Amino acid sequence: MSKEATSPSLYTSFSPALLNLYDISNSIVVVIDVLRATSTIAAALKNGAKQIIPVDSVDECIRIGKQMSAITAGERDGKVAEGLQYGNSPFEYPETFINGKTLVLTTTNGTKLLHMALNNGANEVITGSFANLDAVVEHINKKKKSVLLACAAWKDKINIEDLLFAGAVIQQVKDNFSINCDSSKIALSIYNEAAPNIFQYMKDKNASHFERLSSFGLEKDIEHCLTSNTAHVLPIYKDGKLVKG
Amino acid sequence: MSKEATSPSLYTSFSPALLNLYDISNSIVVVIDVLRATSTIAAALKNGAKQIIPVDSVDECIRIGKQMSAITAGERDGKVAEGLQYGNSPFEYPETFINGKTLVLTTTNGTKLLHMALNNGANEVITGSFANLDAVVEHINKKKKSVLLACAAWKDKINIEDLLFAGAVIQQVKDNFSINCDSSKIALSIYNEAAPNIFQYMKDKNASHFERLSSFGLEKDIEHCLTSNTAHVLPIYKDGKLVKG
Repeated sequence: MSKEATSPSLYTSFSPALLNLYDISNSIVVVIDVLRATSTIAAALKNGAKQIIPVDSVDECIRIGKQMSAITAGERDGKVAEGLQYGNSPFEYPETFINGKTLVLTTTNGTKLLHMALNNGANEVITGSFANLDAVVEHINKKKKSVLLACAAWKDKINIEDLLFAGAVIQQVKDNFSINCDSSKIALSIYNEAAPNIFQYMKDKNASHFERLSSFGLEKDIEHCLTSNTAHVLPIYKDGKLVKG
Repeated sequence: MSKEATSPSLYTSFSPALLNLYDISNSIVVVIDVLRATSTIAAALKNGAKQIIPVDSVDECIRIGKQMSAITAGERDGKVAEGLQYGNSPFEYPETFINGKTLVLTTTNGTKLLHMALNNGANEVITGSFANLDAVVEHINKKKKSVLLACAAWKDKINIEDLLFAGAVIQQVKDNFSINCDSSKIALSIYNEAAPNIFQYMKDKNASHFERLSSFGLEKDIEHCLTSNTAHVLPIYKDGKLVKG
């Protein structure tokens, strides 16, 4: 990996519980929640959503949804949460439905991390998923700033799929960054092992989130969320809203 | 990986900052600090040390050392810390020197984790490293209790070498435990990638701790710490002391 002193640094945080270990005051933070928050965010923005407001509770989702006459969405245990209109699947937000609209989305792990990244003084907060892999890669290559790839995990427990996306980014940008970070090297190794067939890898490993979502009948969602470049957009988090960059 | 409901569970924590995510009240916790605390602990006990008292500061090391007329040891930045007698290298504790003696050892990451594991109510706390790999494997296979493999990391940042040891354990015990834990699966993958030559792997990856210790001229230590089964002992942590199990 490139070691040029002039290269910006790249680190990977495997869990929100580790985020505080990294000085992100001059960094771009890429929030990663592959299954399914950041995948759905990419799909909805690509399909023309005006903005997405991530919130961390169903109550807040209902409240803000009413206030803004917006679409409310979120799931609990694989079903649309009581009081909300839609779920967390990227398939629920085709252009014919979401174009021009505001979506209030309740997620647990992803929203927490977006807030943490801003509160810790990140220079810029964007979201990443396989859906917008190339858009993330192009952006961080162009900006030439330090980067933290921040995995949302599951209630702070490390997830394979978020590491796989971090590794996919690293695989493409590694010559442009100084990567003195064991976590990044681990993510890259795992990605390279999985790369021939990421969906099959998750299935074979019986990854915890794969198992959880499959039990809700969501294999189609998983397959879509592990497919690269279905939504070439760059969601930027500003003033509590995700908008197209 | 085995999924029998009757099998005890096995989890892996990549950093002390993640330890609180696991209920260890009925578990054996294996504290892992491959470079070099738990490797040196295994070597000293194998060579006849009566007991090892891990402490987290140089001052406490000096104080307890005087109180017990014990050997004091610890390093800061690759050199014996001021006021202490010996360093953190397993080579410093041959039988001719350490047999029958008490060693007070100051380590940062390892000691913190030993205390945390006890305070969180672990059923038993032992230490693991490549030096005593088979002793750890035999013990946890025999006990048939749930296990948490707890990596000491470096100031909470994830280290490749601690994951490699966790993976080496998992590779040997995976049929006897129920492993519904992405971290364990990641550790196993990394271990299998590295297994043909772990030292070379650490070197090729330019692992952060490899780089740090090499810069102090400690490549020989690293090589020894990555070698399996040089010390067939089981260090058990009880009443603030590590003794042979």
